[in-house]
Amino acid sequence: MNPAHAFETLHLRMLDVGHLRAASAVLDWDQEVNMPPAGGPARGRQLATLNAHAHALFSASETGNLINDALAARDHLGPDRQALLDEIAYDYNRAVRIPETFVRRFSEARSAAYQAWLDARRRSDFSMFLPHLDALVVLNREKAALLGYSDTPYDALLEDYERGMTSAQLKPIFDLLAQRQSALAARTSASSSAGAEPGWLGQRWDTARQWEFTEQVLRDMGFDFNAGRQDRSAHPFTTNFSIHDVRITTRLTEEDFFSALFSSIHEGGHALYEQGYREEDEGTVLASAPSLGMHESQSRLWENMIGRSLPFWNHYLPYLRKQYPGQLDRVGAEDLFREANRVRTSLIRVEADECTYNLHVILRFELETALIEGRLEAADVPGAWNEKVRQYLGLEVPDDASGCLQDIHWSHGSFGYFPTYALGNLYSAQLLATMEAAIPDLWDQVNEGVFGPCLCWLREHVHRVGRRETAVEILRDATGKEPDTDAFLEYLESKYSALYNL
Amino acid sequence: MNPAHAFETLHLRMLDVGHLRAASAVLDWDQEVNMPPAGGPARGRQLATLNAHAHALFSASETGNLINDALAARDHLGPDRQALLDEIAYDYNRAVRIPETFVRRFSEARSAAYQAWLDARRRSDFSMFLPHLDALVVLNREKAALLGYSDTPYDALLEDYERGMTSAQLKPIFDLLAQRQSALAARTSASSSAGAEPGWLGQRWDTARQWEFTEQVLRDMGFDFNAGRQDRSAHPFTTNFSIHDVRITTRLTEEDFFSALFSSIHEGGHALYEQGYREEDEGTVLASAPSLGMHESQSRLWENMIGRSLPFWNHYLPYLRKQYPGQLDRVGAEDLFREANRVRTSLIRVEADECTYNLHVILRFELETALIEGRLEAADVPGAWNEKVRQYLGLEVPDDASGCLQDIHWSHGSFGYFPTYALGNLYSAQLLATMEAAIPDLWDQVNEGVFGPCLCWLREHVHRVGRRETAVEILRDATGKEPDTDAFLEYLESKYSALYNL
Repeated sequence: MNPAHAFETLHLRMLDVGHLRAASAVLDWDQEVNMPPAGGPARGRQLATLNAHAHALFSASETGNLINDALAARDHLGPDRQALLDEIAYDYNRAVRIPETFVRRFSEARSAAYQAWLDARRRSDFSMFLPHLDALVVLNREKAALLGYSDTPYDALLEDYERGMTSAQLKPIFDLLAQRQSALAARTSASSSAGAEPGWLGQRWDTARQWEFTEQVLRDMGFDFNAGRQDRSAHPFTTNFSIHDVRITTRLTEEDFFSALFSSIHEGGHALYEQGYREEDEGTVLASAPSLGMHESQSRLWENMIGRSLPFWNHYLPYLRKQYPGQLDRVGAEDLFREANRVRTSLIRVEADECTYNLHVILRFELETALIEGRLEAADVPGAWNEKVRQYLGLEVPDDASGCLQDIHWSHGSFGYFPTYALGNLYSAQLLATMEAAIPDLWDQVNEGVFGPCLCWLREHVHRVGRRETAVEILRDATGKEPDTDAFLEYLESKYSALYNL
Repeated sequence: MNPAHAFETLHLRMLDVGHLRAASAVLDWDQEVNMPPAGGPARGRQLATLNAHAHALFSASETGNLINDALAARDHLGPDRQALLDEIAYDYNRAVRIPETFVRRFSEARSAAYQAWLDARRRSDFSMFLPHLDALVVLNREKAALLGYSDTPYDALLEDYERGMTSAQLKPIFDLLAQRQSALAARTSASSSAGAEPGWLGQRWDTARQWEFTEQVLRDMGFDFNAGRQDRSAHPFTTNFSIHDVRITTRLTEEDFFSALFSSIHEGGHALYEQGYREEDEGTVLASAPSLGMHESQSRLWENMIGRSLPFWNHYLPYLRKQYPGQLDRVGAEDLFREANRVRTSLIRVEADECTYNLHVILRFELETALIEGRLEAADVPGAWNEKVRQYLGLEVPDDASGCLQDIHWSHGSFGYFPTYALGNLYSAQLLATMEAAIPDLWDQVNEGVFGPCLCWLREHVHRVGRRETAVEILRDATGKEPDTDAFLEYLESKYSALYNL
């Protein structure tokens, strides 16, 4: 094929792959948000067909030939097309290392493991999950061997979620975080300023008003409802079918004042990223984030650093007093700020506060690297888990349901995913620190409910880059630094020292 | 290929085609119900890709080879598989007569025509639509030639919507209907019993209560909300992604008491058909209706014959009095029945009552056969249209927007679709007459809000057949008769004679 033509043909083929993947995402979204209960089995078959078609189209040798032809004429392409070509080649080269037979074996093992995990967690019986965990560890080692690695097989798996990151880089970062965050958590719980939970928190909060509040905050953040929507689902998530169709979900409960709000802001942070790619990247892999950690940095920045800030509550208190007449009369912005940041050292990761969250991640990272590197037997996971919870959180695990069976990730065969949550926290703090320097009145603006400068800065330095750079490159360009713990620990320690008079 | 194996391979391939089509239907539904405004262009591209993949998979020569191999061993298949094989072969043989190049030309002409029609209707300027109508008539003649026909090219087009039906069969039926229905309409409007519209109709009707009413009626009809749902959309429709996921939409307006209800019942009638196929047909073409006319017979039977009956209103009046406290105190079931059947001879088909509806269809049929057979120039459509409206409805058409530009069908390139609406009315009356004989207490049951016997009868005689028989065969088996006008005219004339004291 004419090399100049090869890129265009490849591009069109990849757009088709993207359309099939987007269709699959629509079916997934519908399944979580709308599908009637009996629709499940047929939906599963429809998704399997769609995904198989997308996979076949993408991993066909014809795609490889087009890539090679296009690469031969790479110098004739402009920088955007070069970037797109390189990303397509990167994805393709990883995909073709995993043979179809392995994909099928892995997928079958995963389905079985997921069902077993659901039962095991319900009965809090690790032994039911053990053979499946064992099998998935073996399969993940096999996957790592197929993908290739230089240092540890774990790096080959991590690459799927946090491209370019290695466990050698993570280890010292996580060691320092573990030490400093578990010390901070111990000091907050020992603090006399902790106090009991105030009575007003226990009121009922009308869910229709909560919904209005989340939509108001999302609009203020800059979420474009003309190019997106919010719905309810059992587990909040973000998905997108194009730059102009980005959907988030939240959940509402009358008892919890903060739950829906922080879910909405968190997913809203992800959604602003998805709505912020360049128009000319629409439908291509460039219109995506370079890593889960960078994606998570956006949700964390909005949820924790902005949503759980005092200026945020200064702005929304008058609004909330109108929304909930009589319910917040004796509650000040300081009270809301304090309760939004109350440290409740918990056994459960998804209920963890900012102060302890990374500790949950780190213990999982340590266990899963040990599993993949063969330093830990699957059978020994519960004991090792409980020991680390004691060490980092000072808690005793009463049963495996609230211990090593609590998360879905391993049952899905995902090893290497957890670190991205902690990296998201680190990246967000580094971005925030730089943004604060670039926008001196940032917090005055937040105090007025004006988030535009913040969003513009993120658009310019993060969102619009898409996948043109890795997470580390984006961070370097935006902040001048490599990923580190300084900004995050400073943020965390100063926030909690003030809150708890440490 | 081993002929015994050929059928199974073909079957799996066709299931895949079905999954891609179902995915496409999900994307369509989402577009009408949920999609944010800016999502349109990407959605269009996603749908184009999905449809192209489904079409390529279906019309590939490999499908043809499998069909031939399977047909060679047809005698070894059981009756259900024989039926399925025959239906697949029927669809395939029609599809391959239309070359890819024609599909593309047709599709492009249609897109242009649709846009032009939107503008033309808005400005009520037929000349803007004329060149597109002209082009689509030419393309439809070409399509008819590709498909083949013996009598008139119109029959080749009609086949897509009402398989086996011919314009030679339709003509005498429609001539009789036109004569009798336009006479009946004239008598009702001349009747002194017509009276003015009562004041209570002009009240505001809370839309949340309307929604509850529609869901109550749907549940009573037997619509399974565990395998379906109702939503709002600008134009009510029914779609399905499997037997266990059937979705309808309706629209709500405070001013109109009947609009949402009859939309819901109408779409509910379609939906009961889709939920009523045999479980073993799931995912195959056997789980579909043999024709649009037969599908429409179900919506019309539920909407007009049951929903607009006196027993129906006898049952729901007490419920409605509770739903709308004070609003219906002086309104009786007879009043509701009368207003649900008020004849309002209208220029607009979709606003037409039962008494005049077929007249709108017949005039379109007469014009489109004349266009396709070359007896009428596109440029002469407005004049011919207005003349027929005068003749059948006794009305003057003030502008083309409320005349020949009112319907979307021609702009979509659909010729041969309109007759199925009238056939639906005829079939529904023939089915009802037989059902009334089979279930002597049918109306007593409806009077109690019990629709089970009616649904069971339709399930047995219509729904569960799927596409194993043509519409005419289903009618013959169920009623012992060919399609005719007797049952419908008797139903209509007796209903309106009573209502209007004719």
